[in-house]
Amino acid sequence: MQDNTPAVRSEPIVRFGSGAPERREDRVSVEEPLEIRVGGEPLAVTMRTPGDDFDLAAGWLVAEGIVSRPEQIARIEHCRDVRSPEEEGNVVVVRTTEPAGAALDRARRLLLTSSSCGLCGKGSIESIHGRFPPVLSPARTDAAVLRRLPDALRGAQANFAETGGLHAAGVFSLSGELLACREDIGRHNAVDKVIGFLFRQGRLPLSETILAISGRASFEIVQKALAASMPIVAAVSAPSSLAIDLARDAGIALVGFLREGGFNLYSGEERLSVPAPAR
Amino acid sequence: MQDNTPAVRSEPIVRFGSGAPERREDRVSVEEPLEIRVGGEPLAVTMRTPGDDFDLAAGWLVAEGIVSRPEQIARIEHCRDVRSPEEEGNVVVVRTTEPAGAALDRARRLLLTSSSCGLCGKGSIESIHGRFPPVLSPARTDAAVLRRLPDALRGAQANFAETGGLHAAGVFSLSGELLACREDIGRHNAVDKVIGFLFRQGRLPLSETILAISGRASFEIVQKALAASMPIVAAVSAPSSLAIDLARDAGIALVGFLREGGFNLYSGEERLSVPAPAR
Repeated sequence: MQDNTPAVRSEPIVRFGSGAPERREDRVSVEEPLEIRVGGEPLAVTMRTPGDDFDLAAGWLVAEGIVSRPEQIARIEHCRDVRSPEEEGNVVVVRTTEPAGAALDRARRLLLTSSSCGLCGKGSIESIHGRFPPVLSPARTDAAVLRRLPDALRGAQANFAETGGLHAAGVFSLSGELLACREDIGRHNAVDKVIGFLFRQGRLPLSETILAISGRASFEIVQKALAASMPIVAAVSAPSSLAIDLARDAGIALVGFLREGGFNLYSGEERLSVPAPAR
Repeated sequence: MQDNTPAVRSEPIVRFGSGAPERREDRVSVEEPLEIRVGGEPLAVTMRTPGDDFDLAAGWLVAEGIVSRPEQIARIEHCRDVRSPEEEGNVVVVRTTEPAGAALDRARRLLLTSSSCGLCGKGSIESIHGRFPPVLSPARTDAAVLRRLPDALRGAQANFAETGGLHAAGVFSLSGELLACREDIGRHNAVDKVIGFLFRQGRLPLSETILAISGRASFEIVQKALAASMPIVAAVSAPSSLAIDLARDAGIALVGFLREGGFNLYSGEERLSVPAPAR
C-alpha cells in the first residue's frame, strides 16, 4: 500500500436473512478512480481499489506498450499538486526516460476510443500482433499444477473473504509456486498490479509463468498476459470468444472453468505435459 | 438481435475432468467491440456481446445524459460505410434531433478520461448530482419480492446456462414482475441494453421499478440506474464503496448479496415496506 486509503471499509447495513432483519456492520471493497498521467498528460482513469498504485500504473504502461524495461520509468509518484483534497492519492504521475512517442500516440488514440482494444475484433487482434510478438517460450505445465491453482489463489487473497467483492490475479511458476498475487475491484487492475509489481522488480518477460485469475477471461486479460510474454492464462470462470481467438494467435494456452478439480483447455494443447487425446 | 453475429458460438476444447481428458465442443459467449458514433463522431467503444446494439447505444446515451427523450434520437443504424469487413455490424451511428452541445462536450471529456466517472470519488458524485436529480419517487417494495428476483433473473437468461459467461440485467416492477431482461458479457452493457430498450419504448423514467443485476454493483451501475430514475438496485453480489455512496446520495435503495433467500440493504431503508429494526 502506497497511500492511506484502505482497500476495505466498514458500512452499517440491515441484514435480511431467514429471521428478523438485523443491523450489522459489513466490510465492503473500496472503489476509487485512479488517474494515470505520463509526461504531464492524463492517459487513463480506472476505477480501482486503492493500494499498489505504482504497480498498477507500471503494469498498465507495459500492457499499452509504452514501456518495456523498468529503467524506462525515471520516476513514479502520487501527484502532490492536486486540485482538490479528494484527488489526494488518486493521481499517479509517471516520467519516462525516453520520449514514448509512437506508443504514446497509440495510447492517446486508444483512449479516444475509450477501450484498450481497436475498432473491431480482427483489427485489434492484428494490431496486437504488430505490437507484441507471440509467446515463443516452450513453457509447459501439468494438469495437476493447474488443478491446484484456484485454492492457492484463494489462499493468497487477503481481502476477498472479508468483502466477497475483489478479483484476484496471481502469477505462478510452471510448477505452481506463487510468485505474486494482487486483489482489486477490477479484474484488469488486479492483472496490471501483479504484472506491474514483477515488472518493477525486473522480472519480465514472464515467459516461464502462469497467470491465474479469479473471474472470467476477456480479450483484455489475454492481451495483458501477452504484453508480459506469459505462455499460460488460467481463469476460474468462462473465457470470451475474442480471448480464445487472441490466445490461439499468440501461442498462449487458455484454461477456463478451472474449478472443482477440472478445467477446459481452449488453446495451446502443446503447453500441457499430459498429452491431449487424439483428434 | 439486429445483426447476424450470434451471441454464443461453439469452440472445440479439451475437457480435463476426473477421468481421461476428452475432446468436446463448448459454447462460449461472443465478445466483440461496438463503436458508438454520434453526429459522425466516435464517442465510445465497448466490448460487448453482439445483439440489441441499438438498445445498447440508446441506453449508453441516456446514462451519459446525451438524450433524455426517445424523440431526441432521429435515427439509429449500423454503419453501412465500414472500412473493413470486420467492422460490419460493429459500428452504430446515432443522429440526434437537437445538437447535444453541452452533453456531447461532457461525453468527449469523459471519453478523454477513459471512464464514465469524473476524476475522483467525491467530485464525480457531485458531478452526477449536477447531471441527474436524486430519485424522488416514493417507490417501495417488499423483502419477499426482492428474495424472488435472483430466480426470476436466472430464469429469464437465455444464454447463461449455455456459456456460464454472460451477465444479466433485469428490470422488474415493484411487485416483482419482469419487464425486460438482457444479457451481455459486460455487466454495464447488459444494463445499457435493458434500459435502452425501455427508453426506446417511451417507458422512462423507470421510477416504479427495480434494477436487478447478476453480478456486483459498481459505481457505474448505480449511475446508470440514477440516469433512468430507478429507485431500487439489487445485486446478486457485492457492492463497492462508491456505489454505496452514490446510492445514499441519490435516494436509491441498494441491495447486495441477494442470494440464497437473503440480502444486505446498504441504503434506502425507507424503500422497504417491512420496517427495518430500530437503530
